[in-house]
Amino acid sequence: MPETLFKVDLTKPMHEQEVPGHNRWHPDIPAVVSVNPGDVFRIECKDWTDGQIQDNDDPSDIRDVDLTVVHVLSGPIHVNGAQPGDILVVDLLDIGALPDDEWGFTGIFARENGGGFLTDHFPEAAKACWDLQGIFASSRHIPGVRFAGITHPGLIGCAPSQDLLNTWNARERALVEKGGPPWKPAIPALAELPNPQNAVLGTLKGAEFDRVAAEAARTVPPREHGGNCDIKNLSKGSRIYFPVYVDGAKLSMGDIHFSQGDGEISFCGAIEMSGYIDLHVDIIKGGMEKYGMVNPIFKPGLVEPRYSEYLIFEGISVDEFTGEQYYLDAHVAYRRACLNAIEYLKKFGFTGEQAYLLLSCAPVEGRVSGIVDIPNACCTLALPTEIFDQDMFPT
Amino acid sequence: MPETLFKVDLTKPMHEQEVPGHNRWHPDIPAVVSVNPGDVFRIECKDWTDGQIQDNDDPSDIRDVDLTVVHVLSGPIHVNGAQPGDILVVDLLDIGALPDDEWGFTGIFARENGGGFLTDHFPEAAKACWDLQGIFASSRHIPGVRFAGITHPGLIGCAPSQDLLNTWNARERALVEKGGPPWKPAIPALAELPNPQNAVLGTLKGAEFDRVAAEAARTVPPREHGGNCDIKNLSKGSRIYFPVYVDGAKLSMGDIHFSQGDGEISFCGAIEMSGYIDLHVDIIKGGMEKYGMVNPIFKPGLVEPRYSEYLIFEGISVDEFTGEQYYLDAHVAYRRACLNAIEYLKKFGFTGEQAYLLLSCAPVEGRVSGIVDIPNACCTLALPTEIFDQDMFPT
Amino acid sequence: MPETLFKVDLTKPMHEQEVPGHNRWHPDIPAVVSVNPGDVFRIECKDWTDGQIQDNDDPSDIRDVDLTVVHVLSGPIHVNGAQPGDILVVDLLDIGALPDDEWGFTGIFARENGGGFLTDHFPEAAKACWDLQGIFASSRHIPGVRFAGITHPGLIGCAPSQDLLNTWNARERALVEKGGPPWKPAIPALAELPNPQNAVLGTLKGAEFDRVAAEAARTVPPREHGGNCDIKNLSKGSRIYFPVYVDGAKLSMGDIHFSQGDGEISFCGAIEMSGYIDLHVDIIKGGMEKYGMVNPIFKPGLVEPRYSEYLIFEGISVDEFTGEQYYLDAHVAYRRACLNAIEYLKKFGFTGEQAYLLLSCAPVEGRVSGIVDIPNACCTLALPTEIFDQDMFPT
Amino acid sequence: MPETLFKVDLTKPMHEQEVPGHNRWHPDIPAVVSVNPGDVFRIECKDWTDGQIQDNDDPSDIRDVDLTVVHVLSGPIHVNGAQPGDILVVDLLDIGALPDDEWGFTGIFARENGGGFLTDHFPEAAKACWDLQGIFASSRHIPGVRFAGITHPGLIGCAPSQDLLNTWNARERALVEKGGPPWKPAIPALAELPNPQNAVLGTLKGAEFDRVAAEAARTVPPREHGGNCDIKNLSKGSRIYFPVYVDGAKLSMGDIHFSQGDGEISFCGAIEMSGYIDLHVDIIKGGMEKYGMVNPIFKPGLVEPRYSEYLIFEGISVDEFTGEQYYLDAHVAYRRACLNAIEYLKKFGFTGEQAYLLLSCAPVEGRVSGIVDIPNACCTLALPTEIFDQDMFPT
Repeated sequence: MPETLFKVDLTKPMHEQEVPGHNRWHPDIPAVVSVNPGDVFRIECKDWTDGQIQDNDDPSDIRDVDLTVVHVLSGPIHVNGAQPGDILVVDLLDIGALPDDEWGFTGIFARENGGGFLTDHFPEAAKACWDLQGIFASSRHIPGVRFAGITHPGLIGCAPSQDLLNTWNARERALVEKGGPPWKPAIPALAELPNPQNAVLGTLKGAEFDRVAAEAARTVPPREHGGNCDIKNLSKGSRIYFPVYVDGAKLSMGDIHFSQGDGEISFCGAIEMSGYIDLHVDIIKGGMEKYGMVNPIFKPGLVEPRYSEYLIFEGISVDEFTGEQYYLDAHVAYRRACLNAIEYLKKFGFTGEQAYLLLSCAPVEGRVSGIVDIPNACCTLALPTEIFDQDMFPT
Repeated sequence: MPETLFKVDLTKPMHEQEVPGHNRWHPDIPAVVSVNPGDVFRIECKDWTDGQIQDNDDPSDIRDVDLTVVHVLSGPIHVNGAQPGDILVVDLLDIGALPDDEWGFTGIFARENGGGFLTDHFPEAAKACWDLQGIFASSRHIPGVRFAGITHPGLIGCAPSQDLLNTWNARERALVEKGGPPWKPAIPALAELPNPQNAVLGTLKGAEFDRVAAEAARTVPPREHGGNCDIKNLSKGSRIYFPVYVDGAKLSMGDIHFSQGDGEISFCGAIEMSGYIDLHVDIIKGGMEKYGMVNPIFKPGLVEPRYSEYLIFEGISVDEFTGEQYYLDAHVAYRRACLNAIEYLKKFGFTGEQAYLLLSCAPVEGRVSGIVDIPNACCTLALPTEIFDQDMFPT
Repeated sequence: MPETLFKVDLTKPMHEQEVPGHNRWHPDIPAVVSVNPGDVFRIECKDWTDGQIQDNDDPSDIRDVDLTVVHVLSGPIHVNGAQPGDILVVDLLDIGALPDDEWGFTGIFARENGGGFLTDHFPEAAKACWDLQGIFASSRHIPGVRFAGITHPGLIGCAPSQDLLNTWNARERALVEKGGPPWKPAIPALAELPNPQNAVLGTLKGAEFDRVAAEAARTVPPREHGGNCDIKNLSKGSRIYFPVYVDGAKLSMGDIHFSQGDGEISFCGAIEMSGYIDLHVDIIKGGMEKYGMVNPIFKPGLVEPRYSEYLIFEGISVDEFTGEQYYLDAHVAYRRACLNAIEYLKKFGFTGEQAYLLLSCAPVEGRVSGIVDIPNACCTLALPTEIFDQDMFPT
Repeated sequence: MPETLFKVDLTKPMHEQEVPGHNRWHPDIPAVVSVNPGDVFRIECKDWTDGQIQDNDDPSDIRDVDLTVVHVLSGPIHVNGAQPGDILVVDLLDIGALPDDEWGFTGIFARENGGGFLTDHFPEAAKACWDLQGIFASSRHIPGVRFAGITHPGLIGCAPSQDLLNTWNARERALVEKGGPPWKPAIPALAELPNPQNAVLGTLKGAEFDRVAAEAARTVPPREHGGNCDIKNLSKGSRIYFPVYVDGAKLSMGDIHFSQGDGEISFCGAIEMSGYIDLHVDIIKGGMEKYGMVNPIFKPGLVEPRYSEYLIFEGISVDEFTGEQYYLDAHVAYRRACLNAIEYLKKFGFTGEQAYLLLSCAPVEGRVSGIVDIPNACCTLALPTEIFDQDMFPT
């Protein structure tokens, strides 16, 4: 077993850990450890909510979750020799649950507190707890399904430079001031701007803490450095190429998902869990310019579960409430594909909430199938039918 | 070989065929043939432009293409016993090129005439011609790549009812009147409204032709009936479940693609070709209500080319020109993922146009990876690296 | 469509074709055509029995088949520049049935005339005819199954040199003289030695015909040149590297299989059909020594049908009649695995003959799983359960 | 983490464990623990040699291994309610290395002590040690390869009845008395008959120990109960259906392989390791007769590594030393395929021993491709080329 360079005590919140991690992005959050190119090591992670959710049948913890706390991350890890402009090569050698914490949860956030992709359809909080048995997950809250997850970190990336951070803050603030598209639900927010409340910034203290907390970016969106990409295929065996923006790269990670569907549609939509990640790191000097890199790129692993039978749902960019036609809007088209799948699943004995939770966390594939056939985008959602214990095809 | 129920003469335009097809959607276009549930038959199709593009090195035919002509379709086929509310089950038993017409083309339309996903980056017309050799395609215009296509009809669907047609026309007209999202390029159009110019409506003539041509929907977008979905996975061996809106279902198809990438991003983006489709049809009575069907659903075939090695590019919903932040905009995010891939390919000896054409037509996977992490959507583009004759990973 | 360099008239036997092929191996059978490295061309093939089997419900044609006629081959093709010691690189660009001959057959040969792997269990002739619809096969003789085939030439290879031919004849004669292993059924023969009866040797005539016919090898076994390997994965998109033994390589092929299971256990065990093959050829000069080549090697294609659910049967090298223990005998072990699968299929409504035919021709995988655990070899047979229209797992 | 029902202390031999397991098969070896149908639990296993092999560069431990000790097994586990004639359903929920023992070894046994498939070609002992990093294995003794293993128990099965045990002993003794096939190497043995030396029989003592030890079967071969099948696809997520021969089934397991090629050709041929297995058990009453079960059957898991590019070697049943022709001998044919692959690998910088070790333990596929084309069997070996860091195709 590789050496564990970041440990977590599941009985304590992140700010009380012996070596605390962080829940904001900022170049000045101190590294917790240094490694060399070629090193192999283990990092432990808490679940993204810092332990706010319980393995029970009461969704009030999902409803009342404090989102100023998220996402609690393990790191930053300083990689010796990494400099701005380099590429940090990260191999995800293994990912798994922590012994004696082998369960996970999927939630629908209430519209008033977090919301999600279909918040206008499912405004109330709901929760499914998952029992993890080896490679399989099953839930007493969604009977009749069992599947192998594509385990991955929902969130992984290097620290931004101060310049990049400033860009993020400026453009997100501008969005909040300008407003969103016509189909934007009234709540929740357009973006989460810097918020010192409940910020955890490693060992920073005092005035330095205050300075950083005031401008550190929230961890919610994916950005140029990677971050909360929620890409379900960043699984065991993947190799990720990260742009490096600061000395030492300052790699952090968390939000481990036992399984997630493309889009992670219910927002708390993966099978969220604590866990560990085994990593190998290396550096490609000057790689960003050499390869024209803006965002991370990656090579997926080769041990993803293999399904061969899918049922695929289509969606087009027409609003389901108003019938309004949107212009090549893949967000609306994917929403319609998801809603079509949910309606279908309801014919097979699932409630709408169960179906919504299931599409969020099962290994469903979401595709941008057609994006040029004006005015309709066509998105598709592919549901692996082998995860069900009944025949799912029309007859 | 199953009986051919719709033949095409490649030397003649669609309106001069012995039995002409159509290039608009309307319930009153007469069926060309009737079949029974359980029948197996072959349908021949012209390429979607009705033969306007030549196998040469001059892209002026792409630049000057007459888009009032598209898409020329084979059908409608009346399925005996199919009634509104039923599901039409269509098995795609085989799809292929026509003997002695085994080539295809991929085009970038000029911004002034058609445009495409990246029209502000690639405003000029371009063309790649493909040589089809069995399961493989290669192009003298994009040396260094060779791949097996996922052959499929870009366009297949049943006729709309008059009510559904009216809905389409109303909502698309409203969009044109209201305008598109901020990132909409100035040209081309937001939508193609009914246009009698060059309409082909089977055997309709005179006043009836004029009435139908005035209100028949253009074939460009996918809609509730399927239509121009451009779903690359509707390939050999697929089973499609179509909603039926009119007596006899009136199934039509065309726009055969030897291969296409998710999104078909350059618009004339697949390897476009003429070809044949072998079909088997059946009916599920009352299936639309039984399964809550709005759009078609399908089960993909099991002989798609199998790649195991991909390089995956990420994109987020930030405008590449202005840096403006969009709210969970998967269109912009996928555009950024495509642009990231193009920049990368340029480092390996491809021109931007070659890369754009390649992402349009090669079997690339486009995913809606994260759609809830406000304010950034995260889309990914997965490029199968085995199609290249060089090592495509960073080193 | 590539130029057809070898045509067949299905209404005539091979020796009456305008350009006859051959059904024996000998270096002096004249080439029918010459091609250059880099050429792409089509070869048509008759079924391996030269049209002896009919699409009907009467297996007497299988029972009475004249096996001195097999296998009728198309070729030889002279590849300009190929010399002994070179590697001939052959790409199988496409393979398919001939239009209007889209059916196939699978047979159990009678023990007295041909036999097969389980001839002591199934001594009577039987036949299943298959209806080919695009990528799928189904049979009125084995209801309840439908599958996509892995289409391939059962037989393909270059001509032997005189020396190699002499080696073949000597060692096979020695076997006939010495006898087989204890589990060898009393009939049929141990090997088929040269036999002039019904020999077809291209355009050879007179004394030259007689000389060659007397020593030409039968086509039944695979040998160093490839030949009747019956490797089901030599399918569309494969690249084969053949050793070259004579000037011009003299490539021949035939025995096209719409589908076959590993082992082709009933001997006439594939879905046998006539058909065409599109090929591309090239040469690696001096490749045999460079790569230490004895037998052909190949890279399989990437459009094989994709199944994910299998039921796997084990067999060990203990005789099913006598209980005798054999030493690491993979032949016996695979036989037991097949018999175990047949017994299982009989519990699901299939007759033994249907099960035997099905394992012969469906895409089952036969594995040498363990070959060192004295004294038992362990072979496994993997049956794709998605080809059945019923649930095939124990409950 | 499921409860661990069998623990191992890696510092002690099996007979000194607090609860010892066993290394022979006999119905009267007492169960170590009882479980109920539906239970989930963990079993720890020592490596098959009981810790005789060290992680170093000296193969003398392989050369001098004491094979009377193998295979040390964990169990038997009594499943409440299981009776002769039932099927025991075993789900392999997870399999992995023990923390802090994450390494493995592959050995070539000396001809004088164990031997292997190619013992006449490689008579000397050799060893490769593997470093396990998450899903990947690499070895300082075979540079240039790295692969993801298909981890599985080489040995798992239920106890035989006394009758079945007697049958085993009788037939194996008869083989030893009768002799093997002509290609059998002079040494090692034909079979391993009961041998009390170093027998470990759980808690049995005294006269009962002596009685059982005298007749207990060695664990080397796979037999009707499963046992040492060395089927590489019995991996994570598999469901195995075992015949039950004694009350409580008495399930045992061991010989965990991080990875193995089909055939496990060098005998000590997998990446051998200690480890754990998480299991779920259930019972199908009366299942053996219902499904005609003789040997176990199984459904493989869906997280096996996915390779798409293979190089496939053929072999036929002609002796490589004498040129003697064997009759449909799949053992000889697979041996020739392996030898062909080894010769090829030697052209790419590997020694023969390295190649032999690699084919033994890497995820290579061994197929019985043709078994009816008298007199030659055709076996194939498929080598996944993505495991190499160089291009492995002929050029």
